[in-house]
Amino acid sequence: MKPDKLIDYQQILSKITADCRQIDDIGNVASYIPELGNIDPNKFGVHLTTIDNQNFSFGDSTEKFSIQSISKVLALTLALKLEGGNLWRRVGVEPSGTAFNSLVQLEYEHGIPRNPFINAGALVICDILISHLKKPKYDFLEFTRNISENPNLNYCSRIAESEKLAGFRNAAHINLMKSYGNINNDINIVLDFYFNLCSLEMSCQELAHTFLFLASNGINPITNQQIISSRRSKRINAIMQLCGFYDEAGEFSFKVGLPGKSGVGGGIIAIHPGKYSIAVWSPKLNKKGNSYKGMKILGSFTTKTRSSIF
Amino acid sequence: MKPDKLIDYQQILSKITADCRQIDDIGNVASYIPELGNIDPNKFGVHLTTIDNQNFSFGDSTEKFSIQSISKVLALTLALKLEGGNLWRRVGVEPSGTAFNSLVQLEYEHGIPRNPFINAGALVICDILISHLKKPKYDFLEFTRNISENPNLNYCSRIAESEKLAGFRNAAHINLMKSYGNINNDINIVLDFYFNLCSLEMSCQELAHTFLFLASNGINPITNQQIISSRRSKRINAIMQLCGFYDEAGEFSFKVGLPGKSGVGGGIIAIHPGKYSIAVWSPKLNKKGNSYKGMKILGSFTTKTRSSIF
Amino acid sequence: MKPDKLIDYQQILSKITADCRQIDDIGNVASYIPELGNIDPNKFGVHLTTIDNQNFSFGDSTEKFSIQSISKVLALTLALKLEGGNLWRRVGVEPSGTAFNSLVQLEYEHGIPRNPFINAGALVICDILISHLKKPKYDFLEFTRNISENPNLNYCSRIAESEKLAGFRNAAHINLMKSYGNINNDINIVLDFYFNLCSLEMSCQELAHTFLFLASNGINPITNQQIISSRRSKRINAIMQLCGFYDEAGEFSFKVGLPGKSGVGGGIIAIHPGKYSIAVWSPKLNKKGNSYKGMKILGSFTTKTRSSIF
Amino acid sequence: MKPDKLIDYQQILSKITADCRQIDDIGNVASYIPELGNIDPNKFGVHLTTIDNQNFSFGDSTEKFSIQSISKVLALTLALKLEGGNLWRRVGVEPSGTAFNSLVQLEYEHGIPRNPFINAGALVICDILISHLKKPKYDFLEFTRNISENPNLNYCSRIAESEKLAGFRNAAHINLMKSYGNINNDINIVLDFYFNLCSLEMSCQELAHTFLFLASNGINPITNQQIISSRRSKRINAIMQLCGFYDEAGEFSFKVGLPGKSGVGGGIIAIHPGKYSIAVWSPKLNKKGNSYKGMKILGSFTTKTRSSIF
Repeated sequence: MKPDKLIDYQQILSKITADCRQIDDIGNVASYIPELGNIDPNKFGVHLTTIDNQNFSFGDSTEKFSIQSISKVLALTLALKLEGGNLWRRVGVEPSGTAFNSLVQLEYEHGIPRNPFINAGALVICDILISHLKKPKYDFLEFTRNISENPNLNYCSRIAESEKLAGFRNAAHINLMKSYGNINNDINIVLDFYFNLCSLEMSCQELAHTFLFLASNGINPITNQQIISSRRSKRINAIMQLCGFYDEAGEFSFKVGLPGKSGVGGGIIAIHPGKYSIAVWSPKLNKKGNSYKGMKILGSFTTKTRSSIF
Repeated sequence: MKPDKLIDYQQILSKITADCRQIDDIGNVASYIPELGNIDPNKFGVHLTTIDNQNFSFGDSTEKFSIQSISKVLALTLALKLEGGNLWRRVGVEPSGTAFNSLVQLEYEHGIPRNPFINAGALVICDILISHLKKPKYDFLEFTRNISENPNLNYCSRIAESEKLAGFRNAAHINLMKSYGNINNDINIVLDFYFNLCSLEMSCQELAHTFLFLASNGINPITNQQIISSRRSKRINAIMQLCGFYDEAGEFSFKVGLPGKSGVGGGIIAIHPGKYSIAVWSPKLNKKGNSYKGMKILGSFTTKTRSSIF
Repeated sequence: MKPDKLIDYQQILSKITADCRQIDDIGNVASYIPELGNIDPNKFGVHLTTIDNQNFSFGDSTEKFSIQSISKVLALTLALKLEGGNLWRRVGVEPSGTAFNSLVQLEYEHGIPRNPFINAGALVICDILISHLKKPKYDFLEFTRNISENPNLNYCSRIAESEKLAGFRNAAHINLMKSYGNINNDINIVLDFYFNLCSLEMSCQELAHTFLFLASNGINPITNQQIISSRRSKRINAIMQLCGFYDEAGEFSFKVGLPGKSGVGGGIIAIHPGKYSIAVWSPKLNKKGNSYKGMKILGSFTTKTRSSIF
Repeated sequence: MKPDKLIDYQQILSKITADCRQIDDIGNVASYIPELGNIDPNKFGVHLTTIDNQNFSFGDSTEKFSIQSISKVLALTLALKLEGGNLWRRVGVEPSGTAFNSLVQLEYEHGIPRNPFINAGALVICDILISHLKKPKYDFLEFTRNISENPNLNYCSRIAESEKLAGFRNAAHINLMKSYGNINNDINIVLDFYFNLCSLEMSCQELAHTFLFLASNGINPITNQQIISSRRSKRINAIMQLCGFYDEAGEFSFKVGLPGKSGVGGGIIAIHPGKYSIAVWSPKLNKKGNSYKGMKILGSFTTKTRSSIF
């Protein structure tokens, strides 16, 4: 399936981003650690990459920011390559139906997190990666640099450290899972790895490039490198569709209609399988913890381009 | 977007259905009312209709069965036409994350059901329809006959009556919502309407035809009748994707990768927007209340035809 | 054990009630039905009866009011006489730990209410009474008149009718329990009986007299009539201690230190086994639904008389 | 109030303990750490001390065992002396209504534990003690030795260490509370102190002596030392009554009718205010985690001596 050449992405996105800059922003920048709270709330970037390598960039699209939970998709991708389907014995594929950091479900479900994109699930994925990788932090970074063909990607150690200091709730999750036998490695090592992953920094442009393989059956369409099998690529997209926006997954599906993943840094990546990947960045978050303007832009975009997958 | 002519649906489905008949069936026929429990557990039908009106039929595909919760999609469609977006003030679009009949969430969320496909949400939709329709049961049937171009569709009053006698849990739901002010009409009238809707009987062939408009931007592609706007058609699909299989929505998305809706009668309808609708029927249900073989077939089908939407 | 003659109840209660009239009242009169909302919020009565029949009366202590949930203790007493220990197969003895009308627990615990004093539990008790009594409403009233030696007690049909019209949440409870097989009689008959029980009217004086048997090992110490066995009398007190104040049972035990039961009409009955029964009435309710001044008075009383049972 | 001299405690307890040895024991010794699992399941001791210092001893009543959660009562006593009523801002007095280690409630209630006897509540109490004490472990031990007039009391470091290694769930609790700001000290220091407290070892005889002050308005009746005020002594008893047996508090109140506290080591202490303290020990635990035979003995004892407080 080829992207539809007749749609003038440039014009549509110009209009939407211009409109969106006008509207009042709502919500607050994530502030549980100072490093996230200090970000300029007016930052605003969009980057669209089609599978035939057309690129459309707006605003602060080349400025790096903390991708936070968006990195969970990359962690899942690598864990699937290394561990295969056995991974699903330790983490589910169902939406959580509650806020992203709820311990309630984890307890009722005996330490098996609902899906790999809630914090508890991502911690299990990190535990799996540590069991497979010799130098987990280094190896994961290499994997990410490789699929994005970008040696410039890096963790932000300052953010990772800050998260660690404020990470009592994540410590609660991982201790609870350990009590159920669903964490194999040392808790502090897993937490350290997790906080580093969340501290990855990318620009909208880099995000759109990095995630393009999910729009193209697991193959980077520009280099033809097979990142992951077609079947697993589809499954990662399916999980993003159902679980990528915490307890606002339904709203995002309803309004945007694409698989996607958000982070508390204000970034969102969304995928149209067979067509494109698109990354947006705007730091103010709605009550559910997702970028307010980011969701607005993507909703307008899929409506105007009629490119919801539904 | 046109369906892919190169895929030999006939051959692929022949092979899958033949294979599927061989495998041991798992689970039990729904038995909470005798009328559902008496069904032959070996019934097995498949019907695929493409948007250019190719049809592929297997097994008991022309035998009518109780479509049960699948009718909730039709009820939502009509309610959206009559009430419009205001409807979303009274019912959400998020997956429930728990079993289909849980009162817990309804209480925590003050009488607003998570989505229109859990029982509580469907009861609110019925309440909305009653407020709009002069003769609700008759009018809804006419609507369904009209979109399916099939005057032969009917409720099964015997099943509706039986459900009513066993419907204490639905009575609990509706009374709880009434206590929160989210039911406007008389409780018994809403329950009666709801049980009639669930008693609708269709064959796989009829289901695939009836739901084809959701594969074609809200337009029945054979008659060119606009059933609902393109935008709303996409949104109904999005809700099916996230909420159509109760607490197995993730599993269905992961394995099948299509928006779909199941019923405890053993039927499933699934949609590939832009390509086809497919209905399957096999009465034995897995632990989550969805047709065991039905899910198997659809999983094989989208894998072999590479037609997951993801 | 004899009541302590040296304590000057008259003087202590005079002081406490005088003080209590001075303090600002907090909260609101129950208003979910007009009949309860219309009560004068400044009504205020206290009556203490010792097991050697000393009586101390203050304020509006002879004015009848709607005893509401206090009647659940009498219903339990009669049910224990008729059904015996088998009753505990259908209702528990544990505190609910949540608000008095929560459906959550009932669902998790498969239709067995936590205790006989939450609404769901009282509905099961009513179901049991209906199975035993020929003319349930008449027979229960006779039982109450008998133990209180007071032919003047009556239901208030106006209140019973109003409760029925607003009773959707109770209907939700009973339907849910029926779905689990824990209600044997017709739902509407049980609800009607329950609402009548709650509509019983008594004054503080009448309440203190009626409940005196629980201060005296099940025997009315004035008539020497054995209402219930000593063992069961103790168990009813134990359940009151743990479950008599919904999710404020701990607070009442902590501050007052007596078994007791409150009603949304603003009444409270409390028992000191071996010493006295005391009834208070003040209609304004705190956030947990218990009389604000009623709890204040009883707390001061047991502190000043050092008569907490602990 | 003086203990009833006419009751022949010696004869009654002889009969009950002899009977109880005959009955089949039920349940299992706590086994989450080897040190607890290795205990002889047939150990069986009873010691009763009246407030006029009569003593009645049966079986292994002078053998020390791990008192585990019983120590939470002593921790609360000391914390009330040091912190006073401010303590109740950080921990509640309501029964939890769920299993003793549930994180669910803690999350819904924003890090404020229901009461000081669930693990989370005891961890808050430990945090408070650490804020007040110079050498927390040493000072607490001195306090306990002092009120029991027994320099022979000690922690068991082997058990404390084992608990720490298996204490992931407690780590989950304390991290969750820290995320809500309800823990002031370093998590590892609080956990270490907590596990030491739980490792305290006492015999039935020592337990009965140590807790006698709660039967006597806060005063050790033998030494006349005031351990805590009368008012606080009553409140500690009230909390034990409502919260001392996790989600079996109602059952214990119903069957035994005394304030009491159990530990997973198989010990139970129970108090009759104004009369006696009684300690029992039998390691096999019922499904709720309380000593099976211990509850049996106490139920028979209060029935035969008619000494339920209700």
